[in-house]
Amino acid sequence: MKRTEPIEMGRVIAPKSLVLIGASEDYAKFGGRILHHLVDHGYEGQIYPVNPKRSDVLGLTCYPSVADLPEIVDLALVAVPAKALADTVEACGKAGVGACVIITAQLGEFSAEGAALERRIVEIARSYNMRLIGPNCMGMIVPQANLALSSTPTLRYAGQMRKGGVAFVSQSGAMMGTLFLQSHDHGVGLSGMVSIGNQADLELCDFLEAFIADAETRVVCLYIEGLKSPERFRELCLQAHAAGKPVLAVKAGRTEAGSQLAKSHTASLAGSYSAFEALCRDCGVVLLDDPDAMILAAGVISANPRPGRTNTGLICASGGGAAIMADQLASRGLSAAPFAAETQGRLEQDYPATHANNPLDLGGHKGGLEFGIFERAIESVHADPETGLTAYVMTPQPMMPQTLDHVIEVWRRQGKPVVLVLNLSRFGAEQRDQAFAAGLPFLTRTDDLYRVLQVYRELSTMSPRVQMPERPADLSAPTIEATGFLTEPEAKAILAGYGVSIPAATLTTTVEAAVEAAESCGYPVVLKGVVGDVVHKSDLGLVKVGLADAEAVRAAFSDIVGAIETAAPGAPVRIDVQQMIPAGVELIVGLTREPGFGPQLVLGAGGIHVELLRDVVQRRAPLSSEDVRDMLQDLRIWPLLDGARGQAPMAVDAACEAISRLSWLGDDLGDRLQDFEINPFRITEDGAHALDGRGTLS
Amino acid sequence: MKRTEPIEMGRVIAPKSLVLIGASEDYAKFGGRILHHLVDHGYEGQIYPVNPKRSDVLGLTCYPSVADLPEIVDLALVAVPAKALADTVEACGKAGVGACVIITAQLGEFSAEGAALERRIVEIARSYNMRLIGPNCMGMIVPQANLALSSTPTLRYAGQMRKGGVAFVSQSGAMMGTLFLQSHDHGVGLSGMVSIGNQADLELCDFLEAFIADAETRVVCLYIEGLKSPERFRELCLQAHAAGKPVLAVKAGRTEAGSQLAKSHTASLAGSYSAFEALCRDCGVVLLDDPDAMILAAGVISANPRPGRTNTGLICASGGGAAIMADQLASRGLSAAPFAAETQGRLEQDYPATHANNPLDLGGHKGGLEFGIFERAIESVHADPETGLTAYVMTPQPMMPQTLDHVIEVWRRQGKPVVLVLNLSRFGAEQRDQAFAAGLPFLTRTDDLYRVLQVYRELSTMSPRVQMPERPADLSAPTIEATGFLTEPEAKAILAGYGVSIPAATLTTTVEAAVEAAESCGYPVVLKGVVGDVVHKSDLGLVKVGLADAEAVRAAFSDIVGAIETAAPGAPVRIDVQQMIPAGVELIVGLTREPGFGPQLVLGAGGIHVELLRDVVQRRAPLSSEDVRDMLQDLRIWPLLDGARGQAPMAVDAACEAISRLSWLGDDLGDRLQDFEINPFRITEDGAHALDGRGTLS
Repeated sequence: MKRTEPIEMGRVIAPKSLVLIGASEDYAKFGGRILHHLVDHGYEGQIYPVNPKRSDVLGLTCYPSVADLPEIVDLALVAVPAKALADTVEACGKAGVGACVIITAQLGEFSAEGAALERRIVEIARSYNMRLIGPNCMGMIVPQANLALSSTPTLRYAGQMRKGGVAFVSQSGAMMGTLFLQSHDHGVGLSGMVSIGNQADLELCDFLEAFIADAETRVVCLYIEGLKSPERFRELCLQAHAAGKPVLAVKAGRTEAGSQLAKSHTASLAGSYSAFEALCRDCGVVLLDDPDAMILAAGVISANPRPGRTNTGLICASGGGAAIMADQLASRGLSAAPFAAETQGRLEQDYPATHANNPLDLGGHKGGLEFGIFERAIESVHADPETGLTAYVMTPQPMMPQTLDHVIEVWRRQGKPVVLVLNLSRFGAEQRDQAFAAGLPFLTRTDDLYRVLQVYRELSTMSPRVQMPERPADLSAPTIEATGFLTEPEAKAILAGYGVSIPAATLTTTVEAAVEAAESCGYPVVLKGVVGDVVHKSDLGLVKVGLADAEAVRAAFSDIVGAIETAAPGAPVRIDVQQMIPAGVELIVGLTREPGFGPQLVLGAGGIHVELLRDVVQRRAPLSSEDVRDMLQDLRIWPLLDGARGQAPMAVDAACEAISRLSWLGDDLGDRLQDFEINPFRITEDGAHALDGRGTLS
Repeated sequence: MKRTEPIEMGRVIAPKSLVLIGASEDYAKFGGRILHHLVDHGYEGQIYPVNPKRSDVLGLTCYPSVADLPEIVDLALVAVPAKALADTVEACGKAGVGACVIITAQLGEFSAEGAALERRIVEIARSYNMRLIGPNCMGMIVPQANLALSSTPTLRYAGQMRKGGVAFVSQSGAMMGTLFLQSHDHGVGLSGMVSIGNQADLELCDFLEAFIADAETRVVCLYIEGLKSPERFRELCLQAHAAGKPVLAVKAGRTEAGSQLAKSHTASLAGSYSAFEALCRDCGVVLLDDPDAMILAAGVISANPRPGRTNTGLICASGGGAAIMADQLASRGLSAAPFAAETQGRLEQDYPATHANNPLDLGGHKGGLEFGIFERAIESVHADPETGLTAYVMTPQPMMPQTLDHVIEVWRRQGKPVVLVLNLSRFGAEQRDQAFAAGLPFLTRTDDLYRVLQVYRELSTMSPRVQMPERPADLSAPTIEATGFLTEPEAKAILAGYGVSIPAATLTTTVEAAVEAAESCGYPVVLKGVVGDVVHKSDLGLVKVGLADAEAVRAAFSDIVGAIETAAPGAPVRIDVQQMIPAGVELIVGLTREPGFGPQLVLGAGGIHVELLRDVVQRRAPLSSEDVRDMLQDLRIWPLLDGARGQAPMAVDAACEAISRLSWLGDDLGDRLQDFEINPFRITEDGAHALDGRGTLS
């Protein structure tokens, strides 16, 4: 019965048949709870309960073991104790099961023993061409197949799943339960949710791929602790982008504290968050900070057309609320810009000119209240040509049912997105039912409104890197023989090989040679002591700048000889005499390697700004000149480069060109790269120069 | 019947009798809705309905007019149309009413005509010693008096008000309705809520004072659009701080967009948000960005003892949730630091060492689940000596009722705060009821948890300025005769009078005089052209620095003469020859006046940092040297002053002394101050010097 080919992913998320090992009728037991959920939610495939002690459960024929099933099934749900796990997986493999959903936990995330067992079941599964989901997962919920294959009690609470376009792939099972609840209670329609646990076999990308291919799915949400295959992730997300399916993600490990917890949770090495951020930017993934907000944002996006512009028309029923929301939007750089003159004119039929604002307080109308006023206002704001979407924040107000009906009617009639916020706490039961019936998802807090508007803005401005840049025609791959910690001359030799400008320099060992070198390169000059693996040369007195004549060079030479003796007693005297580059804007340019994520180029503000601003951007190398320019423009110090306050602009083109060329070094070194850094990289009005370099290669 | 003295504020918020003009039984009508709310919520004082067409309503005797009432009443509710307003207020005044709550809107916030009527009713009220609340308000809700004097339909929804320690004074009536709802649905007990509308007579500070004096009130929340009396506000908030009653505030007008809306809403001039922020810091008020979050935070604080430390023990039931929360806390600088070794030891009975973390995922225990595990974990975390409060974030999990009961039991037993988050959406009905019954307020989103922890941190670190500093004994108040735009020498003369160091300087009109001045002060020198109201002197070529000899001085003099002719044709040649101060860290030091808020001292990073960092702090002048040091430490560039990266520290003491002395200038100038600025104020290793100054005085 061994399968000749693994099951297709489309059938994993929408299986035609299931075997449930340890099925029971008792809702208090795991196997009973799942069976109830499957039956209650009307799963249409075949369910095979396995329980040697029973002939039937909940009206379904029961089988004594997996070996006794009358057909080859797609999925098996396995929640046996660890000691029975290997045998159960083996039995499933023998029976030709397509994939096992392994709930059993306390494996790889728990102990070395558990990790060994985890590896063992993967081997067994592979030997039968069977796939595994989990272990340490909580199953899946796939509304489009009426499949409630999870023990989360929220499935009983939600009598009927809401079908729709939002998929969720989660490394946390409990989070799947929470987001199922949030989606249900906010009218978010789902295509499917999968809990992937430790990803021993099938991993996040397998399900991401399946949901991108799935016709029902319009938006994919991800909760990630550790990414197993960044390169595949990149390709899939670019596919999703091309298919017009936004991918939203929350990732643990933004801080050291979060990384530690992700590791103990699903044995995931969180990896560098900054490399993940860079990856997301490259492939058009929107990162959020809160999982609940992610599923709600996805619901709003999936139920609406794409806005033509992100300027928002905001309607509420509280003057104070309008003022606070205006502050919140403005402080996030979100736009609720004035309405078009024609809209303003229409609003002024019912509102004084001082009150016909965006955000609009419905209550600020002239004279007494009649329903036509709200109706006309909603109509006018929603038709406004300056705004690409309408947000309606409902707090307790007069005529709530009629007003919301009108919002829904206008939303249906016009092809413009509506973001509805029912800030009514439990009071708004009737309004929630109206929205549920209309299929209009809603938010309940303005925090989430701001997040949704930020997501819309990001979706409208993102430009994924569909193709990696081409290597400059004149850039060969120089042979680099140095290993270990590179001295400044070694690092600079590499830079020169990549066409990065470095100040003219002569390595000297005597004071007379130094003076001669200085005379030949022209004053003023810089002297630098060259000592093994010293990083902060200046702090050790190994650097003397602005030496204007021979006398100054002699004095500096002598000082540096003393400093070398202090820093590295017995080290040979090797002093670099360098051309002095005029003042400019300093950057730090670094290359690092993040396993799986490829070489990373890090650009940061240099000099005193390093500590004050922590002004850093990171992207995957290699990068084109245009990519580098984008990165520079994302730095807070960009105005200094661009000629702030009427000063001359710096040689940005030369800097972009040099950094782009350097970015190929990351590619060329491959695994040999540990780190490489230019600090400072000085950009002047006339050029861009690496004043110092260091690195470690293996 | 005219009152000889105004009614006491304690009786305004808890009146013994009320007159309701236009009372009816019809819930659809305003006067009916209010009457129903009053009766339904069991107001214990005397209600006098007035309606000439009825002999009784809802079983209460009805009176034909205010003049016919059998006693002098405390409060009258007035919601008549604008055209009847003056007569109604007059009738109330004649009847000796203590205060009118004026719902009528479209007055000062609406039109010049409305503003005139608003002034008129204030005059009428004053003539009878009667107070007014509003107009354009929505009444008040005072649970301690069972007083539901508002038309907000949320009062009917909330069958029973929750009594407790949170007071709310709001410039927005609709916001009062929304926050009443939020408080009710999150178990927040209220002492009272007042909507103050346009503050034509009684204003925010009157109610703030009343609630500080009120025995039931433990925390006061404020929603502010414009503050009428900042000085009184300061004194009251200091009183509240001394009484251990935290004051939380949300203020509209943080941005230009919000200021505009606040103005059209309640005719409030929002004033400078930065001056308000400075005021809040001085008097110990915690500012929040979201009104809903404010009332929930107040609920948590009012129901708990003050935490001894703000390090938080966090419990949840999701490994993914724990990781995300750890990230969110760390990125906000909030602390969920490791538990004490003894706590760790206790947790390791049930949890592997890798999982006994803070935040603790209850689900990460060893072996199978029994209830004792959760119970012991909650017990251990709550008893942890390293943490000052416990946060419990409940998402769908096993054994929810029992677990929450245990959390409540532990909270009752121990004197340590518990912040409960029921992130269960509508699913958690039973848990909410458990919390309601226990009197434990709860949050529903982690966004609010982070805000609550930030409020706790702020409360624990705040140090209000109880006393203004004393004037330095040696600082006289120099006579300042200059008016209008001050030239650099005029500004510097003022600075010198306040003991601020300025570089030695000689004003010259000829090149020979300039050379002579330079010789006498010593090279290098700076030359500056002095021209009327020019601000950016450098950009116009009026400043030449680093002049090393007589030749350089001559060349610079000639260049500046040309620049003066360009900048101000025909202006006399006046060139300042100044001692050159060595490099250092540059600040901008400014004095401004904010009407009502007193003189404001603004300190900011100078030089290129002005635009890059927008690194500015503002406080009310005058300031002591210690105050100035606090401000400097709040700047992001503080490390540069403090000797970052092994560099020599700058002369911070001298800088604090100089800035403190300058801060008295704001006081001394009073209303004459328009603005005054030192830019740059250069702090070197040896001293602190005003290199340039300007100002405008009237």
